[in-house]
Amino acid sequence: MAAPADIENQSGRKITRVVPIPQTISAEAQAVLAGPPSPYANVVPATPEAWKALIAEINASTWTNLIQPALARYPVTVERREIAGVPVAVVTPKSRTAPANNRRTLLNIHGGAFIVNGGRQAILEAIPVASLLRMPVVAVDYRMPPEHPFPAGLQDSLAVYQALIRGQDRRRVGVYGTSAGGNLVVAMLLRARAQGLPMPGAVALVSPWSDIGPVGDSLGTNAVIDPTLVHYNGLLRAAAELYAGGTPLDDPRVSPVYGRFGRWFPPTLLLSGSRDLLLSGTTRLQQRLVEAGVVTEMQLFEAMWHDFPVSYGVPEAATGWQQVAAFLDRRLGR
Amino acid sequence: MAAPADIENQSGRKITRVVPIPQTISAEAQAVLAGPPSPYANVVPATPEAWKALIAEINASTWTNLIQPALARYPVTVERREIAGVPVAVVTPKSRTAPANNRRTLLNIHGGAFIVNGGRQAILEAIPVASLLRMPVVAVDYRMPPEHPFPAGLQDSLAVYQALIRGQDRRRVGVYGTSAGGNLVVAMLLRARAQGLPMPGAVALVSPWSDIGPVGDSLGTNAVIDPTLVHYNGLLRAAAELYAGGTPLDDPRVSPVYGRFGRWFPPTLLLSGSRDLLLSGTTRLQQRLVEAGVVTEMQLFEAMWHDFPVSYGVPEAATGWQQVAAFLDRRLGR
Repeated sequence: MAAPADIENQSGRKITRVVPIPQTISAEAQAVLAGPPSPYANVVPATPEAWKALIAEINASTWTNLIQPALARYPVTVERREIAGVPVAVVTPKSRTAPANNRRTLLNIHGGAFIVNGGRQAILEAIPVASLLRMPVVAVDYRMPPEHPFPAGLQDSLAVYQALIRGQDRRRVGVYGTSAGGNLVVAMLLRARAQGLPMPGAVALVSPWSDIGPVGDSLGTNAVIDPTLVHYNGLLRAAAELYAGGTPLDDPRVSPVYGRFGRWFPPTLLLSGSRDLLLSGTTRLQQRLVEAGVVTEMQLFEAMWHDFPVSYGVPEAATGWQQVAAFLDRRLGR
Repeated sequence: MAAPADIENQSGRKITRVVPIPQTISAEAQAVLAGPPSPYANVVPATPEAWKALIAEINASTWTNLIQPALARYPVTVERREIAGVPVAVVTPKSRTAPANNRRTLLNIHGGAFIVNGGRQAILEAIPVASLLRMPVVAVDYRMPPEHPFPAGLQDSLAVYQALIRGQDRRRVGVYGTSAGGNLVVAMLLRARAQGLPMPGAVALVSPWSDIGPVGDSLGTNAVIDPTLVHYNGLLRAAAELYAGGTPLDDPRVSPVYGRFGRWFPPTLLLSGSRDLLLSGTTRLQQRLVEAGVVTEMQLFEAMWHDFPVSYGVPEAATGWQQVAAFLDRRLGR
């Protein structure tokens, strides 16, 4: 494979056309596709203070627009704790834990481009799975830039994983994450393997950002068509570089699609949408896993955007979480 | 769901941009994406004679450019026969049949937009699977338009299936098809189920054209980006209407994505590429199958076009067939 080239400096096919809003998805999802693109796609903060202000603004919007609807839909309680010195949120369903899950453990590493969804927002993806599977989910509130670039978040995630799997039957431990959290799940398991730690019983990845560099066909084909990320050469690229902090973007520790996989990697669900700007992070990772003999399942949702399951107002989001929960339930030991 | 609307008459997002050739695929595949689009995409024959001339021209090109390279790569012998009065080609590997496959049966229904790949071309997709799995494959040379629109091809396919599964352990029978052949596989199994026939042990679908109407997000998002089909409103639409012969395009007998599925449907592999113009035929069908409780596997190839496995000069094609063969081997009874 040639060295990563800048997607803006490649030759290609010039396209001018109207891409229709499909009628093969819910009315709510059609409204997202027809709505304005994300206002943050082109914002590139120049200083740590500007980053912090932007992060605070996005987090506040996420709390109101995503997490409050999620809490209304999926009844859970949240307890803040520390595991191995790392802050976590334990998200527990208000319904009783399903007896079949009494000995199971679920770990979530949240997404948010390595910059947002920290703090109280870290529960974003734990809420639906805790509620649907009727068992607690531990969400890692890992350190993030601008103060803490790579490898801080990876170290925090690994420390919690190591503490959770100790003394457990590894087949009863599940790990999942979306977007940047999917990146961290895979990078963490590559590192755990190198350190001789046991692997979990199952892994679920939603829209994994497995290559944070300017690489992957979907960065071209799904630009603008994905209204939530819009394009790579703006906030997304800035966040990738802020996180990497000088580490080359094709280093497998920050872009785990370049890692070395083997049959030791757990059965993995990859869930994404056909309009995901980072869809290539899913397709390329699946191909590497399949080549290595790993069991994969994939669910590709018609016309859905990057990390659509956190768009809690859209019916397809609920279906996505149901499929994540069903996969973990099917694959984890009891 | 609203009634299907014409993709050209919908509102949507205007896009003007250069879509780069990705570096995440083989050099051979990059050359296909960078090359000229198909010269046939806009050809719409006005008379049966013009259809026959076009079909003969495409078939001749397929023989030279696809089937001869396939025969060179995958050593097989071909025997023409009749089963249940329907012409078939039995494609047998030159290597000995693998002992594990002695009691297995494989049926292929070829693709070609319901118009091409009949006659001696019907072996197009049987060649690689017979060779890789080391067992014979029966390819149905079903009747096609302009002389024989729906339901002739479906009847022929079902007659052969019924003859092959009679007296067999159904779990040892596999069925696969690409594009229009994927459509026929699913439509045939819906009809077989309605008639009380046993289901096969496994089904593999490559780029299934499960909705032949002007419906599906990929018709918009992947137009032009898929250099082989280019767009729907040309030859593809004309072929769909020629095949349907007046049957509404959303009738489940011609667009099986609208069929009623249940747990009785066999475990199904769906294999496609992220640039497939008909990708929605895969995503929507998978969602219907999953909703019905069917076990599905999906392999989505980075930046690949519609039915890329028949592009035998591209390394990704060989990988695609290997995954089809591996799936059938894993899922079929011995």
